[in-house]
Amino acid sequence: MNKEQIAASMRELQLFICEGLERVDGKARFSEDPWNREEGGGGFTRTIRNGDLLEKGGVAYSAVHGPVSDVMRNQLQLDGNTFFATGVSIVLHPHNPHVPIIHMNVRYFELDSGVYWFGGGIDLTPHYIIPEQAVLFHERLKNICDQFDADFYPKFKSWADDYFYIPHRKETRGIGGVFFDHLNNHPTLSKEELFRFCQLLGQSFPDIYAEQAEKGRHKPVSQAELEWRDLRRGRYVEFNLVNDRGTKFGLLSGGRTESILMSLPAVAHWEYNYQPAEGTSEAETLSLLSAPQNWL
Amino acid sequence: MNKEQIAASMRELQLFICEGLERVDGKARFSEDPWNREEGGGGFTRTIRNGDLLEKGGVAYSAVHGPVSDVMRNQLQLDGNTFFATGVSIVLHPHNPHVPIIHMNVRYFELDSGVYWFGGGIDLTPHYIIPEQAVLFHERLKNICDQFDADFYPKFKSWADDYFYIPHRKETRGIGGVFFDHLNNHPTLSKEELFRFCQLLGQSFPDIYAEQAEKGRHKPVSQAELEWRDLRRGRYVEFNLVNDRGTKFGLLSGGRTESILMSLPAVAHWEYNYQPAEGTSEAETLSLLSAPQNWL
Repeated sequence: MNKEQIAASMRELQLFICEGLERVDGKARFSEDPWNREEGGGGFTRTIRNGDLLEKGGVAYSAVHGPVSDVMRNQLQLDGNTFFATGVSIVLHPHNPHVPIIHMNVRYFELDSGVYWFGGGIDLTPHYIIPEQAVLFHERLKNICDQFDADFYPKFKSWADDYFYIPHRKETRGIGGVFFDHLNNHPTLSKEELFRFCQLLGQSFPDIYAEQAEKGRHKPVSQAELEWRDLRRGRYVEFNLVNDRGTKFGLLSGGRTESILMSLPAVAHWEYNYQPAEGTSEAETLSLLSAPQNWL
Repeated sequence: MNKEQIAASMRELQLFICEGLERVDGKARFSEDPWNREEGGGGFTRTIRNGDLLEKGGVAYSAVHGPVSDVMRNQLQLDGNTFFATGVSIVLHPHNPHVPIIHMNVRYFELDSGVYWFGGGIDLTPHYIIPEQAVLFHERLKNICDQFDADFYPKFKSWADDYFYIPHRKETRGIGGVFFDHLNNHPTLSKEELFRFCQLLGQSFPDIYAEQAEKGRHKPVSQAELEWRDLRRGRYVEFNLVNDRGTKFGLLSGGRTESILMSLPAVAHWEYNYQPAEGTSEAETLSLLSAPQNWL
């Protein structure tokens, strides 16, 4: 399985996910924005806006290559002359605060030295945490992981807990999920099987999100709940711009800004020192974000 | 002039600025939030919300001290055991898009080794750039600088151009201003005079902002202009969270998050790949942001 085949499958995956999400949304369609990278390669950024379910979202595909830059060498400790990278990245912001924000990424990286690896992750950021839904989400992820390696879920769940954390807020970004990187040289799984794992995560994405969205999308919404949604989106912006290593590396290394920042919501709010009143569902959500939870 | 005297003057400066801004606003008053720092010192964060002119803003004072942490040693290359820092920081977000966002900071830093310096800056971020107003702003700053050292304005103006730049957008944050750091051991100015320079910048702040605000605060506003304001506020958020060294260092070194992030607007918007139509005042503003301008 060579890099061209993986890139072609990533592009297929992007289209599969967009079709699935258009069915889930039921109203809006994705627009496609093709772009080229001066140093080699390019991508197709697909975005959706003002759907029935989704207010703003993106499903980006890219396959880029070229010389390993100084930033890559220093920040990623890459030992090679040229690289190839391809993947699919998703962030979706729904209208209804009773539907979670979701993020997914699967990626493949290869150096001219022959070294390669897979990486990825999926995590859920509910505006209001409902423990049963968090359990369901983690069950789905564990089920996918367990088809490949029983160690994947516990290892990658804990990795997500470390990664999706906002130190300056002492909050997790949401209810976590799975995160993995440098996945290669597996004792029993071939390169094809490792890619199949990434692919299955991606292929499962529309159903996983549909299941989460269905439970909240028709719930009535108050002005106070919309305000809370926008404050939580503010936290999402903070994580992405201050903490997310992928975003920071992308912006620093001259990645395509609009594709990287398609992860930001249409609207975000900030209030100085906002504290929800005790006993409210907002306070309950905050308390569940104060530390990673073992949902299963 | 010792650190206690400088800290006391900084606190006075904060109160002077807040009184001035309350007069300019004409409706809202600042609330004061006192806080203590576990390792030593604390501050008074003053915020204003939903005024006649100002939608959201803060004027923060702090005086903190304690051991030089590893983060400080590595990031700031500080050579000392204990430090003392005091200063005033301001960010104001007006309602009306025809009034600029403004930022100011003056600070004093001292190590137990006896080394000390002053730092600071003031810069203006119009949602719509009006060249005459930009010129006026820079004239005011040059006039203050020239009372101390004729080299200050050109040097500090150029420093601001470097500092207030958003590389991933290839845009300046606004029309610049002045920025300086490690100001000490001046050939002709004493420590008292260097502090007097910082103080005069601060004392001039309410008048400088009043003059800028007066020209735009009563202009009628369309929905499209509000949308543009909120997109520009999105850029302001990007600069503060991705690029601003003060914010990044503050969050990383365990500074008080709510005081640091009082700089964020009440509302910010993002649109994928938004481009204003050619010939509009939005496009004109963008073109003036594409590189630092010599306003004088």
